[in-house]
Parts: sequence; structure tokens; C-alpha cells
Amino acid sequence: MAGGKKVAVVMGSISDEVVMKKASNVLKEFKVDYEVNVLSAHRMPDRTREFAINAKSNGIEVIIAGAGKAAHLPGFIASHTTVPVIGVPIKSSGLNGLDSLFSIAQMPSGVPVACMSIDGAENAALMAIQILALKYDDMAKKIEGYKAKMTK
Amino acid sequence: MAGGKKVAVVMGSISDEVVMKKASNVLKEFKVDYEVNVLSAHRMPDRTREFAINAKSNGIEVIIAGAGKAAHLPGFIASHTTVPVIGVPIKSSGLNGLDSLFSIAQMPSGVPVACMSIDGAENAALMAIQILALKYDDMAKKIEGYKAKMTK
Amino acid sequence: MAGGKKVAVVMGSISDEVVMKKASNVLKEFKVDYEVNVLSAHRMPDRTREFAINAKSNGIEVIIAGAGKAAHLPGFIASHTTVPVIGVPIKSSGLNGLDSLFSIAQMPSGVPVACMSIDGAENAALMAIQILALKYDDMAKKIEGYKAKMTK
Amino acid sequence: MAGGKKVAVVMGSISDEVVMKKASNVLKEFKVDYEVNVLSAHRMPDRTREFAINAKSNGIEVIIAGAGKAAHLPGFIASHTTVPVIGVPIKSSGLNGLDSLFSIAQMPSGVPVACMSIDGAENAALMAIQILALKYDDMAKKIEGYKAKMTK
Amino acid sequence: MAGGKKVAVVMGSISDEVVMKKASNVLKEFKVDYEVNVLSAHRMPDRTREFAINAKSNGIEVIIAGAGKAAHLPGFIASHTTVPVIGVPIKSSGLNGLDSLFSIAQMPSGVPVACMSIDGAENAALMAIQILALKYDDMAKKIEGYKAKMTK
Amino acid sequence: MAGGKKVAVVMGSISDEVVMKKASNVLKEFKVDYEVNVLSAHRMPDRTREFAINAKSNGIEVIIAGAGKAAHLPGFIASHTTVPVIGVPIKSSGLNGLDSLFSIAQMPSGVPVACMSIDGAENAALMAIQILALKYDDMAKKIEGYKAKMTK
Amino acid sequence: MAGGKKVAVVMGSISDEVVMKKASNVLKEFKVDYEVNVLSAHRMPDRTREFAINAKSNGIEVIIAGAGKAAHLPGFIASHTTVPVIGVPIKSSGLNGLDSLFSIAQMPSGVPVACMSIDGAENAALMAIQILALKYDDMAKKIEGYKAKMTK
Amino acid sequence: MAGGKKVAVVMGSISDEVVMKKASNVLKEFKVDYEVNVLSAHRMPDRTREFAINAKSNGIEVIIAGAGKAAHLPGFIASHTTVPVIGVPIKSSGLNGLDSLFSIAQMPSGVPVACMSIDGAENAALMAIQILALKYDDMAKKIEGYKAKMTK
Repeated sequence: MAGGKKVAVVMGSISDEVVMKKASNVLKEFKVDYEVNVLSAHRMPDRTREFAINAKSNGIEVIIAGAGKAAHLPGFIASHTTVPVIGVPIKSSGLNGLDSLFSIAQMPSGVPVACMSIDGAENAALMAIQILALKYDDMAKKIEGYKAKMTK
Repeated sequence: MAGGKKVAVVMGSISDEVVMKKASNVLKEFKVDYEVNVLSAHRMPDRTREFAINAKSNGIEVIIAGAGKAAHLPGFIASHTTVPVIGVPIKSSGLNGLDSLFSIAQMPSGVPVACMSIDGAENAALMAIQILALKYDDMAKKIEGYKAKMTK
Repeated sequence: MAGGKKVAVVMGSISDEVVMKKASNVLKEFKVDYEVNVLSAHRMPDRTREFAINAKSNGIEVIIAGAGKAAHLPGFIASHTTVPVIGVPIKSSGLNGLDSLFSIAQMPSGVPVACMSIDGAENAALMAIQILALKYDDMAKKIEGYKAKMTK
Repeated sequence: MAGGKKVAVVMGSISDEVVMKKASNVLKEFKVDYEVNVLSAHRMPDRTREFAINAKSNGIEVIIAGAGKAAHLPGFIASHTTVPVIGVPIKSSGLNGLDSLFSIAQMPSGVPVACMSIDGAENAALMAIQILALKYDDMAKKIEGYKAKMTK
Repeated sequence: MAGGKKVAVVMGSISDEVVMKKASNVLKEFKVDYEVNVLSAHRMPDRTREFAINAKSNGIEVIIAGAGKAAHLPGFIASHTTVPVIGVPIKSSGLNGLDSLFSIAQMPSGVPVACMSIDGAENAALMAIQILALKYDDMAKKIEGYKAKMTK
Repeated sequence: MAGGKKVAVVMGSISDEVVMKKASNVLKEFKVDYEVNVLSAHRMPDRTREFAINAKSNGIEVIIAGAGKAAHLPGFIASHTTVPVIGVPIKSSGLNGLDSLFSIAQMPSGVPVACMSIDGAENAALMAIQILALKYDDMAKKIEGYKAKMTK
Repeated sequence: MAGGKKVAVVMGSISDEVVMKKASNVLKEFKVDYEVNVLSAHRMPDRTREFAINAKSNGIEVIIAGAGKAAHLPGFIASHTTVPVIGVPIKSSGLNGLDSLFSIAQMPSGVPVACMSIDGAENAALMAIQILALKYDDMAKKIEGYKAKMTK
Repeated sequence: MAGGKKVAVVMGSISDEVVMKKASNVLKEFKVDYEVNVLSAHRMPDRTREFAINAKSNGIEVIIAGAGKAAHLPGFIASHTTVPVIGVPIKSSGLNGLDSLFSIAQMPSGVPVACMSIDGAENAALMAIQILALKYDDMAKKIEGYKAKMTK
């Protein structure tokens, strides 16, 4: 898997980094080239839109987006691109992440988002790698190795 | 209250009309000039964005937006305008509107949406009128009359 | 925007101040003239009623009311005035604010309350300012400036 | 138990009668003198307040109040009287009565309401009778008889 | 109000005392003669049954029962007596008291329990006093005084 | 497996039979000798207690108890016997069985109840048979046969 | 995109077909070669395991798995393969699909499942196509066309 | 009760031991011979399957399985054996154990799991002992003694 950045990790606020760095750590471990962006669907809609519209032509193949509360970020991005979007509901004070889970999982027909568990950034990265593994043999080997190791 | 359309009623899907027409009916009753749009934050993000960006210069003073499931429409619009946005969570099959309620009420700091009750389109129109009544004397009189009548 | 106090911030108990001062801070930042009242719908119904009945003639144009548990304060006030009421559900021990959210958002037809997120006092103030901006040009300029700044 | 009406059955809307008549039926069966009122905390606050303030001097000894959604009626009445208030959360479309249950059960310290089950109007009447039975011997005999019969 | 103990405060476990002593404190303040019992519907059903069966003949006029999790204690007692039972759902680790709230509020027809808010032991005592006030003039005076004082 | 009745199916109300007969049907199919009782923890506590206290000496080896709302029946029985009690939360109008699920699953330490799914009477019977199969070879053979058949 | 079947649609029970055929319909519309299997993680674990273990070598590149209640099917399959698994929580009687949503979304670290909305089988197929589009140009073109069309 | 290990305590992750050792402690106290295994349905499906398939022939008569989040472990084991499986939903960060409770309690027809309360490992052991007591007289005596002691 050569070339530029394949995965973009996006988060709604810098405070989400505690959770989202679990995704980055996995990507690093698997030597996936990735970028990290802090982009808010609500506070910076135009910059987020720019990002989403250009993601594909920039070579991004999977987007991981984490957000809390009324977590519109993953759905917002998914509405602007056909690049697969993996959403991570982030637990925030109010409702323990149930609001984020509903806001990400309950997407309407036509615009899918792959929802992970609350704070499940690690799995978001693993899912990204499983998707890349369909296309890139080195990723396929690595994820198979990871799985085999985990089994024991 | 002269001039063009003051209130825009927006809904995520034509199936939301059963609920949202309760808003239109109230606006009609109060002789508020309004427009109705079917606009999806997810399926037509750019058209929805156009609408939101231009709402103010088009003379819109209050936006009523209804949506179901992961109901991002009100928040999406609110992220693009300073016109007050009133959100109506619409009950859809899955979770009885709890998902919509969370997606609309739990907006992050910086981008407020005024959330009504599930399927509460009637109150959305009344809130719009109460807001307009601050500025337009005829609206103030009408809403005071409505309130006085209701009390009995 | 000259004249007296335009916004009233009301809270059900002095312990709600930790949350509600986020509203006051925003109002201060935008130089909105406001007042703060501790008024309980349940413990001081008559004083609260007095406040609500007189709010309009006292020049109040938006009321922000925060309360916890069975949070009847915003609805109680709304039942006595046509001044727009913005409700802030406050998280208290028992049910993490879900009870307050339901008690504020699920208002019956005829008496609207604009519900914010749990502990969302900051947004309550921003919504109040967006409403005032429809009428007062200086407020319109300020909120547009705030929005433009946030976007970057 | 002689004298005038001892129990007042109050409901927020005429549509609540389907549920609340289960209370009336029990009261009738026990030959308790009662009255029925349709009073909305939100739509007719002043009339409801009048009712609550005068309940005691009118001889009312227990109030049964049923309401749906953001069910403030029982708490509203309780805030104006020391007559015991029994609240019946009524199931309405949105959230299956969970909103009403929270709005009635989660009352703040200082103003108690005795919450029954969702649509539990029958139990509200039985609780009213158990309370009256502390004071009126005929009621005590009847409720003991009812209990003895149920046991078999 | 002369004679022996009028109110029994019962709790499912000694760990519930932190919450339930709020009831005792109110009763003390109002000079109501009361007793406290630790009785578990599940672990000591026969002793709890004894208590409930004899409550009335022992002069108890109101029972306040607090319990956590699958909080059967108030319902268990109510099934054995016609003395009014006030239930206090106690917040325990698992589900923040929602399980207790449902277990106490959702009683079947025929056996009413007056449910308070989660951890609402203070209101349980006030409700007990409001009930006693129907019969005992000194209690009526005290609770009216309390209410009048609270209003200010 | 000779001798008398080994399993008792108990339900809180005759209306629960629609659900509970799924248990009876499975027991019949496996030729387990069983009895059916309608017993309410709340309405007939003494008869229910009698049943529970005598269950063991009557040869009952597993009790299946189904109930709705504040479903105390399984826990009530379990508090009086060491015979394993399997609880079936029954969906009733109010809260779709969530109240029953909490009332049965969330039992306090010391008095276990084996909770099945909402309306899961069929599984209750299968669990009863799996328990009996530990002791009775014919049951062991039958349940192994059932499992083998299901697998295909 | 030549070769054999790329997508496997799996469902826990034949009754899930009403929902899952929405996935098949989309796949058909996009001319994706797919297979449909009825496989239960609980009732046929070994056959389901066989399916999952062999999916990759059989050429399957995305698995769509729908299940209701304690919906373990998607997670069960994901535990045996590195092929991306998309889970569809199916609404069943008890808890309106909330149980399925939690059982699918809340997967533990190490074994990701891409959760869709309740009954969101259509989106599952679209997500599968977006994933395939990373590798197959014809799919990329089709999904871009679909998106462009939807926008208008 | 002679012979080898009769009860297997299984947990999804070593972090579950804090909860699950409450089961071990009870088993130790009752002198039940037991084994403890850390086995993940998701991360080590084949080893878990081995365990489940061989449990019966290894003499295991009751399995206690605890797991958090999408807690598939008890159901996974139950799908491979007719040995009774007792499930313990373990509270983890996200949803306070509600996800685990649903994943364990809501099993589909055909594969029963006996669900305990959230973190209810102690009751799981007591239920295991009640089941063993049907067959082993020494266990029957011990559990009867435990019950008698608890009652006082």
C-alpha cells in the first residue's frame, strides 16, 4: 500500500482526541498512512464540507469521524462523499453517549455511516484496515496476522 | 407585518408532511406569510446549504425544520445561518422519535436549535409567532389574543 | 439596543447557577442587558407567576429558564406569557438530565418552550441573541461576527 | 363519611378521560363523593391555580391529577396546596408515557406528588380511598373488605 | 397528634440509610413519632410480612419504604396492608435508579404505591405529613406553616 | 423422570396466559409433568407464599414465573424457596416490558432469579428442561436431541 | 467487477427477510453479485462458523448480517473473519430494536462491526457498494452516479 | 457432591474479574469445585467453542459467564451446549451495563440463558448452587441453611 494518506481521522472537537487517538495508534501500528483533522459540522460547516468533497480526489479511501452529543459530523461528511465513513459516537457528559450513538447509527436511507461502539475508536481503525485489506495485499496480510494472534 | 415570507418550514422528507402541516396550519391561521421546502441535510446537502445561507437575505426571520431518525436537518441549517432555527423531532418507526429528539436537542455549544416536542409542529409555529411578535405589533396582538382565548 | 433589561435568566434553585452562569457569561460578552432570578415553579409558584405575568410589560423580550428533575419552570413561565421562553434542562443526580429534557421538550400543544441541550445554557443565550438580532441591528452585527469568527 | 366532595379528579385534557374514568369508576364503587375537572396547567394556569388554592377550603381531601407528555399538572397543583396530590402519568403518542412518568415522579424536594403507574388511574382512586380510610371508618371498612376479597 | 408511632420508615438494606435518613429528619422536624426498620422483601420475607400485617393494628398510619434495584419492598408491604405506602426508589450502581423507579411506580391494578422521585425520601416524609394533616389538626397547621414559609 | 409434577408454571394474571402457554407447550412436547397456577404476588400474597413455601416438598424442581409491569412475582417466590425460579418479563402496555425486565433481572444479592427475554416463555421451559436434564437421563437425551435437530 | 459473488447477505431468521430484502434490492439495482443465507449464530453456530471461516476464500468481500433481539449474528461472523461485516439491527417486538442496536453497535475492541440504523438494510447495501467502489471502478462510477442523482 | 469440577466460571476479559470473583467467592464458601476461564466469544471464538462443546463431557453441570458491552459470551456458549448457562451482564463505561443486560437477556427462542442483574455475579453462583441442589443432597442442605440464616 504505497501512495499518500489513505485514512482521514476527523473529530468534532479537540477534546475528542483522548478517544480518537486510539484510532491513530492502531493505524500507526499497522503502518497505515493517515491524517488527523479537527473539523466541526456545526461550527465549521464549510471547511468540513471542503474536506469531505475533496477527500476522494485527495486519495482518502476511508474516513473515521468521531463526535459527541448530537453527533452530526460522520453523517455530514457522508452526505458529501462516497468514501466510506466510519462513525465513532463519543461519550459526553449529558447522556453517556446514547445521544451520539443514536445520531450516528440512525442515519436515513441513502447516506450510510458505519457506526462503531461508544468511544470505539480502536475498532474504527480496525474496520478501516479490513476495508483497505480488500484492495491492498500488505494490509490483508497484516490484519490476518493480527486476527490470528488475537485468537490465541 | 408586511413584506415577503417571514417563516420557512423545512422538512427532511415528503413523508414528514403529515406532521409538519400542523405548523403550516397555525401559520396560515395567524396570517403569517411562509414557504415550505423539502430539503434533506443528508441527501441534498448543497441545496440545503444554499437555502440556509440565503435565508436571511431572502427575508426569512424564523426557520422551522422537522426531521426524523438521526435528525440533522435543524442543526445543519443552524450551522449556516444566524436566523433562529426551531427543530421538530419527528417520530419514525425505530425509536419512537427518541433518536430525533436527541439529535435535535443535544446540539453542541455555539450552534443553538430550539427543540420542540416529538411531532410538536404546532408549537413550532406558535414559537415562531412569539418570536415575530417581538418585532411586529400585529403579531403581538394576535398571539396575545390567542393566549387569552386559550386560557378560558 | 437601548432601554432596560431585555433578557431574564431564571433558575429553579441556586445550585443551578453553576450551569446557568454560562448563559450570563455569553449575554455579558454580547453586552445584552439582563437580569437573573432564582424562582421555583414548585416552591414559589406565586412569585414565579408574578414574574411571568409582568415580564412583557417590564420590557423582557426573551426568558431563559433552567431547571432540573421534573423541570416545570420553563413551561410554567411559558403558560403565563407570550414572551419566548428558552428552557435549559439541568442534569441532576437521578437520571442524568433525561427527566429534565423530557419535562421541558415534551410540552403540550399551545404552550411552546424552546428546549436546549442538557446543561446547554450557553446555547440558550446565543438563541436569545439570535432572536433579539431580528429586531436590533447591533445584535445582528454581533451575532454575525461571532458566527464568522467561529467558522474559522 | 358525610359532607361534600372529598376527592377531586383533574385531567389535563378531555382526551385523558378514557384513562381517568377508571378512577371515577372506583370512587363510585366505593361511594366516595367526588368531582371531575378538566384543567390544564399550561393552557389555563390561572383557573388551575384557583382550583388548587381553594381545594382545601372546599373540603377536598385528596386530589387525583392525570396528565400526559410533560405532565406538569399534578406538580402544579401540589405547589399550591397541602392537600395530598396523586399523579397519574398518561401514555401519549411520543414516548409511551415515560415522559409523563418522569415529569410526575421526579418532583423536587419540598413539593411531593404521589406518582402512580402509567395509566394507573384505578390505583390512584384506591390510594385516595386508603388515605381517606385513615379518617373515615366507613372507608376503612370498605377498603379492608376490598382487600380481603381480592386476596381470594 | 398524640398516641404512639404514626409513621414507619422501612428500608431494604442498611446501605439505604444515607438516603432514608432524609425522611427521618423531616419527620423529626415536624415532631411526628416514627419508627425505623431494616426489612428486606427478598431476604426476610416473613419478617417483612409480619411487619406489614401488623402495621395497622400497631397504630401505623403511613408507611415509607425505600429500596433499590428490583425494588419490591414497597409493593410487598402494600400487598399486605391497607395502610398507605409511600415508595422511595433508591439509586444503586447499575441503572441509576431507573430500575427502582419502574419497580415501584409500575404497580399493577389493585395494590397502589405512592412513588416518589429517585432518592426522594424528603418528599416521602412531607407526603406522609400531608396525609396525617387530613386527620390531625396540629399536623395541618405545621404543614401549612412549612408551605407558607417555603413560598417566600 | 417418573413421579409427580416437576415444573410449576405460575403467572400473575390470566391475561399472561397468551405468553405463558408457550412454556406449557414446550413442557408438553418434552413430556415434562407440570402444573399451571395463576398467582399474584400483589393481589394474593398469602396464597402465593403458600405455594412457594410448599413447592419443594411438593416435588417441584423448577418454577417458571411470568409477570408484567412491576413484575415482583418471580422474586417474591424466590424469596420463599430454594427451588430455582425462572422469570419471564411480560410485555404490557406502558413500557413494552422494560419495566418487567428491570423488575425481574435486577434482583438484589442473595435471592437469584433466572431472567429470560421479554415474553420469552419458550426459553423458560427449555431452561427448565436443561436444569432437569442434569438429574434425569431421559430429559438429557431429549434436550440433546432437540439441540442436534435445531442445529440443522 | 467480474468473478463470483462479492457480497453475502445473512439473516438470523427467515422472518428477517422483510427487512433484509431491501439490501438485496439495492445490490440487484447496482448489479452486484450476491448470495443470501439464513444462518443463526445461536441455533446453527457451526454452520454459521463454517460460512464465516470460508467467506474470504469463497471470494466474499463484504458481509451484511441482520438480526433481532440479542443480535449476535454480525459479531459472531466478525469474530471468524477479516472480511468487513456490516450489521443491521432488526426491530423485533420487545424493545423496538434497541436491544439489537446495542448488541451490534457495542462490540468490544478487536472485532469491529459496522452498525447501520434499525432496519437499515438499504444503507447496509449502499455501504457495501461504497466499500467495493474503492477497488472496482464500475462500482465507483455507479455509486457516484447514484449520489449525484440523489442530490437533485 | 464428589467428582471433579461442577461449575465453570467464564469471563470475557481479565478486567471482568473484579465482578466475577464475587461468584468464585460464593462457590468457595459453599465448597463447590469450580474452574475459572478467561474466554472471549469475539476474540477467541474457537477456544470458547471448544470449551462449550466439551463442557458437558468434562463434567461441568453449570456455566456462569460474565461479559460487558455487546455481551455475547453467555449466548455463544449456550449455543454450543445443553449445560445450563447463567449470564452476568457486566457494567462497562458506555451504557452502564444496559447494553450487556439486553445482549444477555434478550436471547432468541431455542437457546436460553439465565440472566442475572448487572454485576450480579454473587447471585449467579447462588443460582448455580440451587440448580446443583436438585441433584446433590449436600448442596441442598447448604443452600437451605444459607436461606434460613439470611431470613434472620
